[in-house]
Formats: sequence, structure tokens, C-alpha cells
Amino acid sequence: MATRKKTIKKAARPAAKNAFYAQSGGVTAVINASACGVIETARKHKNRIGKVYAGRNGIIGALTEDLIDTSKESAAAIKALRHTPSGAFGSCRFKLKSLEENRREYERLIEVFEAHNIGYFFYNGGGDSADTCYKVSKLSEEMGYPIQAIHVPKTVDNDLPITDNCPGFGSVAKYIAVSTREASFDVASMAKTSTKVFIVEVMGRHAGWIAAAGGLASTEDTPIPILILFPEVEFDEKKFLGKVDAMVKKHGYCTVVVSEGVHWPDGRFLADTGLKDAFGHAQLGGAATVIAGMVQRELGLKNHWAVADYLQRAARHIASKTDVDMAYAMGKAAVQFALKGHNSIMPTVERISNKPFKWKVGMAPLSKVANVEKMMPKNFITKDGYGITKKCRDYLLPLIKGEDYPPYKDGMPKYVRLKNVAVPKKLKGKFEL
Amino acid sequence: MATRKKTIKKAARPAAKNAFYAQSGGVTAVINASACGVIETARKHKNRIGKVYAGRNGIIGALTEDLIDTSKESAAAIKALRHTPSGAFGSCRFKLKSLEENRREYERLIEVFEAHNIGYFFYNGGGDSADTCYKVSKLSEEMGYPIQAIHVPKTVDNDLPITDNCPGFGSVAKYIAVSTREASFDVASMAKTSTKVFIVEVMGRHAGWIAAAGGLASTEDTPIPILILFPEVEFDEKKFLGKVDAMVKKHGYCTVVVSEGVHWPDGRFLADTGLKDAFGHAQLGGAATVIAGMVQRELGLKNHWAVADYLQRAARHIASKTDVDMAYAMGKAAVQFALKGHNSIMPTVERISNKPFKWKVGMAPLSKVANVEKMMPKNFITKDGYGITKKCRDYLLPLIKGEDYPPYKDGMPKYVRLKNVAVPKKLKGKFEL
Repeated sequence: MATRKKTIKKAARPAAKNAFYAQSGGVTAVINASACGVIETARKHKNRIGKVYAGRNGIIGALTEDLIDTSKESAAAIKALRHTPSGAFGSCRFKLKSLEENRREYERLIEVFEAHNIGYFFYNGGGDSADTCYKVSKLSEEMGYPIQAIHVPKTVDNDLPITDNCPGFGSVAKYIAVSTREASFDVASMAKTSTKVFIVEVMGRHAGWIAAAGGLASTEDTPIPILILFPEVEFDEKKFLGKVDAMVKKHGYCTVVVSEGVHWPDGRFLADTGLKDAFGHAQLGGAATVIAGMVQRELGLKNHWAVADYLQRAARHIASKTDVDMAYAMGKAAVQFALKGHNSIMPTVERISNKPFKWKVGMAPLSKVANVEKMMPKNFITKDGYGITKKCRDYLLPLIKGEDYPPYKDGMPKYVRLKNVAVPKKLKGKFEL
Repeated sequence: MATRKKTIKKAARPAAKNAFYAQSGGVTAVINASACGVIETARKHKNRIGKVYAGRNGIIGALTEDLIDTSKESAAAIKALRHTPSGAFGSCRFKLKSLEENRREYERLIEVFEAHNIGYFFYNGGGDSADTCYKVSKLSEEMGYPIQAIHVPKTVDNDLPITDNCPGFGSVAKYIAVSTREASFDVASMAKTSTKVFIVEVMGRHAGWIAAAGGLASTEDTPIPILILFPEVEFDEKKFLGKVDAMVKKHGYCTVVVSEGVHWPDGRFLADTGLKDAFGHAQLGGAATVIAGMVQRELGLKNHWAVADYLQRAARHIASKTDVDMAYAMGKAAVQFALKGHNSIMPTVERISNKPFKWKVGMAPLSKVANVEKMMPKNFITKDGYGITKKCRDYLLPLIKGEDYPPYKDGMPKYVRLKNVAVPKKLKGKFEL
């Protein structure tokens, strides 16, 4: 009798809608932790959320109806996403045009969602994807096909508004702070007869959040002479070289953390050297090589330089526990908000206090997130333009707190690769991107 | 009565000699673990070894009689050396000339040793310091002042003979293997619409040991398309680009690990671009930028590049436990061998078996270590010149095994800085280097 009752109940309940999840833009050490949060939470609510489909290579997967059936992945595989860097389903830098310019793309998305009974859209990315998410939710209303569009924040650039920070940033910050401290120790011990200036180039074309994290390498109990070159501060060669010279004279060495976005007063990036090789080919270089050349030439100081590039945003081995926890929490909250009926929103990190560090999950309407870029506050940079203030340090420090080591096998981190089984297509015809 | 007896015994015992310890050449993530092994072991034998003096900035500290009294450091500080990268007493790249050319320097060393009652000389470095150590032991015999000279192996280049490997190398190898895997995961997830080739430049001007470690990123359960450019293999642009093209066609992306020592058939380093800027200044660059330019120009493939530089050898946060253990063991064995009366030797790592990995401490006479450089065996590189063989993998794998995380405070590794109190000078006059 009990069994029969259950069957009747099931039939009476409205069919659960499927969910669509996609990763967008540059991947991070913890974006998969958000995916893990989304999928694990959805799996706990099978009566409301059917399957979670993921876009293969991000939103392109939705446009081309190339969906991945995450229900084919074991619980262990999904759990392992929490400690696996990169984008497990593939990501892309495909920006949807405006509704006016290309309504066709948005309509196609909704067409694919409808074909696969998708009622939840979880889009994990930065500013561009927040905008896309917002537009999809607006258009779905217009088109009469209901979609709950929820944006899951992610970006190493830390430039989304309202949320205290963006998951992904804390781990890059930790990597840069730790690496800067380690390399500075190295240089300090060799400076008497060898390298006196060490230069490390970090990401951040528009904002100096990541460069600022280099400042965390120096603390009260472990002071290190560090100069930070922010994209927010116009580069002044003479002033900078004077600073380097003074620091080396005082401390015997110094470390320069240079953002890839550092530029001359006329706006040209330092990295744009305009150099061409013997065949007239533009020569690639970075801001670090330009700084290194300058220090060698003008001050005659032996130096070394490093460019961290992808190593910094992929460095799951030294991820911040706070960052991993937040990334997971954002994914989990996205599903919980969806289940409560919310639409066109983004879960956020709300900081309650610094000491002790406390935070909670908040919520922001996408209308206030889309197309707003959060810049670094002016009072985060010291007056001389080369360091971080106490305000900045108080903000950054909790974000790099805690370690969250991945499991290892034979000396190597065990990162998961999913099966990524395709969902059979339902629509006819191809969609040209 | 008992007290009196003791006093008599003490007086009857010959006065303990002091020890001198110095760090030489490029520092590593674990050279301080060897220092820890030396000092902790010496402290257990105070009846035989008085104080351990360290050279400030390496052997220069001995020549200029700038000694550090390590007895002023607490047990906790010395213990913390085990997890602190860089050279805690300072290191230098000062190579003593040959005995014939500059006998004066060797005589000065012995003069300083005699003045400070130093009977043990522990020199922690690579090939050059092994040679110096050897010469000091020979000259001390000639001069009639007895010194037990023991070399403690250290070098990220892994080029010392007889010993299975050099402490310092295993941790760089782990850092490069882990970073290569992480960045490759990143690239794989973006390759559909973005970067298809990732290039990471690693240390190793003469030998490809560190580059080879990049090959460990790819394993049977986590295969990754990797091309390694070894300094042992003359660079062939056409063949290399063909390989990149084929890998990207097959896998959608590939990772290139390039040694800083890669060179053209005529011997010129790839990194020597001969480029000058608008003012005629030589432009700094690395092998990675040259490879990146080539891949972009000839194959039109979007790429990114990183130069790890000091980050790789300072990365104590991801040190290999095996490496840390070996570094400590070498320092400890150096003291134990000295106490057994050995002279002019170097403790070594002797590999007993690979599976399970077993090793023990061995001993090599400095006459067989000095001026011998261990190159990578030919059969460690695959026939095509771009990969590592099973033999190489079997050799490398145990060296990166195990993690040995430093303690953290507020999200940052707690690395120790010693007081480095100077020993009062006893000699008159200055010694000019």
C-alpha cells in the first residue's frame, strides 16, 4: 500500500525542470569548486531539479546544443571538482552581442533550454557573463518561456560589484603573496654578490588587485622591501628607479611586483615595446622584461625576472581555503536561491567583520551587477603609489587565509577529469556562431 | 664528590673544536634543511663540536672573518630552518681560484679557521664548492693545521656525480611538474576559443634535469600533450613547429616546457635574441618569448608563456618531502662522518630500489666529486628528442614524492629569519677579496 501511495504522489508532482550550468571566461583554481557546489546541491533536490547539464566549452555549448550530462558523473568525481583547478566542462571567451545586435543568439539559447526542459540557468563567470545572464532572464520573460537565470561570481580580476570579492581572486592573491615572499627570501640571501632586484609580473590589465596581493608578502614580523607597480598609477621611470636605488642601498635588495597592465602616462602599456626582430616580426615581451632592462641599464643592478602567467590562476596546490569555501558556497547558494524562486540575481559574499573574519552569503540583482566594474579604492594604494595601505591589507588578508591542499598520488596532485558525456541533440540544423 | 669528579673529567678531555658551515651558490628551497641537519646534529655532540659558526654570505664570510654564531639561535629557530627556503646565513657565487693562482685565499681560510679554533669545515653547495672543499682539506694537511673538510651536496641543477641526486633538485622538479600539470589543465579548458599553446621556461643552462621534470605532469591516468625542449638537444625550429602543430591538431592544445639552456645548432642560446631597443640597448628576453613568437608567427596559434625563474627554486610551499628528508640527512650525515674522523668526503644519496623507493646515506671521496659534472643520461630522452623515457620517469618520480608543508600564519608560510649574531673578530687587518 505504501508503495502505491508513493507512486501516486510522484505522478501528481509537476515534472522537475533540468538545470544548465556553464563556465565563462578565464578559468581559475576554484571555479570547479563552484561547479561542485551547484551540482552537489542540485543532486539533493532531485524532486525539483532534474538533471544538471553543463555547456561544453561554456555558453558555446548551449548555442551549439553541445550539452554535457553531469548525471553520468559519480559522486566522487563531482566531489573531486572541489580540488581541481581549470574549467572541468571547458570555458570560452565568447561574448554574446547586445540584444539589438544579435537577438538571434539569445533566442537560440532559450530554444535549446526549452528543447531540453531547462528551467534553471547557472552562469559562472565575470562581468560579461553577468550581463548575458541578465539579458537571458529578461528575454525569457518576453518570450514566455520561464528561465531562472542566476549568475555565479568568478574572476581572478576581482572586479564584480556588490560582492565583497570574487571567488578565484583569493587563491591568485595567495599564490602571488607566497611566491613573492619566497623569491624575496632567495634574493635576500644572494644579494651580497648576485641579484639585487627581483621582478615578478602578475595578471591584472585594468585593476591592481593581484599586484596588491604581492604586498602581503611583507608583514610586520617578516618585512620585505617591495615596490608594487599598479595599473592605477601612471608609470614614472625616474621616480621608480629612484625608489629601487634607495631600497637597494638601504636593504641590499628589493622585489618589484609589476602588473601586466602598467602603462606610461600616454596610455601605452610597458609591455608594448614595439620591438621587431630581424624579420620585422613584433617581438613578444612582458612588463617584467622592460623593468628588468631599465634597472640593468640605468642603475647597473643585477636582476632577475619571472612572469607567472597561467601558473598563478591555475595554482590549486596553494589555493586559499577561504576562497575555496566561498567558491563552493556561491555555487550552492545559486541553487538554493533558484529553489526559492529567485531570478536574475547573483549570490554574493557579504563581509560581516574582519577580526575575526566573518562573512555570509548575500544576494544582488543582476540589474545592478551587469556592466559595473569594481575598481580598487584609491585609499588602498599608499600615497607614493608603490605600496598597499592598512585598509588594503585588512581587506586582502582574510581572503588568502587557510590552506586547502588537494590529495596527492605519487607526488602529484590528483585532479579529476570528467567523462563529459554528451546529451543527445533534440534540435535539427546547425547553429552558426 | 660527584660534582668534583665531573669537573675533573671535563678538564681532562681535549677541548672541542668549533665547526664552520657555509652555503654556496644559488640557494634552494631546502638548503636550510641541510643547515638544520648540521646544526642540530652538532648540538647533540657538544663534547666534540664546540660551536657551529656560519659564514655570512657564504665563503666570503670566512675570508673576511665575518662569522655568525649559530649558538645564539634558539632550538626553535634552528628547527624552523627545515621548512624555510633560501640561504639563512646568506650565500654567494664566489669561486675560489686554483691553489696555484691564489694560494693566498686558501691560506686565509685556514688562518681564520685556526683563529677561531675551527676543526670542521662543512661546505654546502655544488661542483665549485666541492672543489674548494677538496683543496682546503689538501692544503690543511700541507700547512699542518688539521681541518676535516666535508662537502654537503646541494644544487637544483642535479649535476653532482656519485650521489643519486642533489638535494634541492627534487623540490624544483616537484614545483615544475605540479605547475605544468595545473597550467595544462587551464589551457585545456580554454583551448576551444583561446590559448592553444602554453610555454613555460625553466632553469637548467647545461642539463635538462629540471625540464625533464615537466614530463612528470603527464601520467598514465592524467595524460597531457607536452613537448620538452632540452639543452641536450639542438633546437630544430621546423621539426619543433611540426610537433606543436600535430599535437594541437590531435589534442586541441599543447604545453611546451623549455629549458633556459636550449640552443641553436651553432651553440647560440635561443634566449640570446640580439634585440636592441630604440636606444640601442640590448633587450632582455627568455627562451619562452622566442618560442612564443615562433608559434604565433609560423603557426598562427594563440599562446601564453611563463618564466618561473626564482619562483621555482624558492617554492618551499610545495617542496618534495623526499627532498627535504634527504637535505636534512645530508647535513646530519656530514656531522656524523666528521665525528667518525672522515675528511675530504661528501655524504651521498644511495638509491637501493625504486619500488618501493629505498635509499640510504653513502659517502664519496671529494677527489672523485670535484670537477666532475653529471649529465643527464642519453636514454632519459625519447628518440624524437621531446620527451622523457620510462627510465627517466622511474628515476625522477621518487624524488618528488611526498609533501612537506611549512606552517602558516594568517595565510602566509612562516619562514624563519635568524638573528645572525656576529662572532667577534680575532684577526687584525682586512682581507681584500
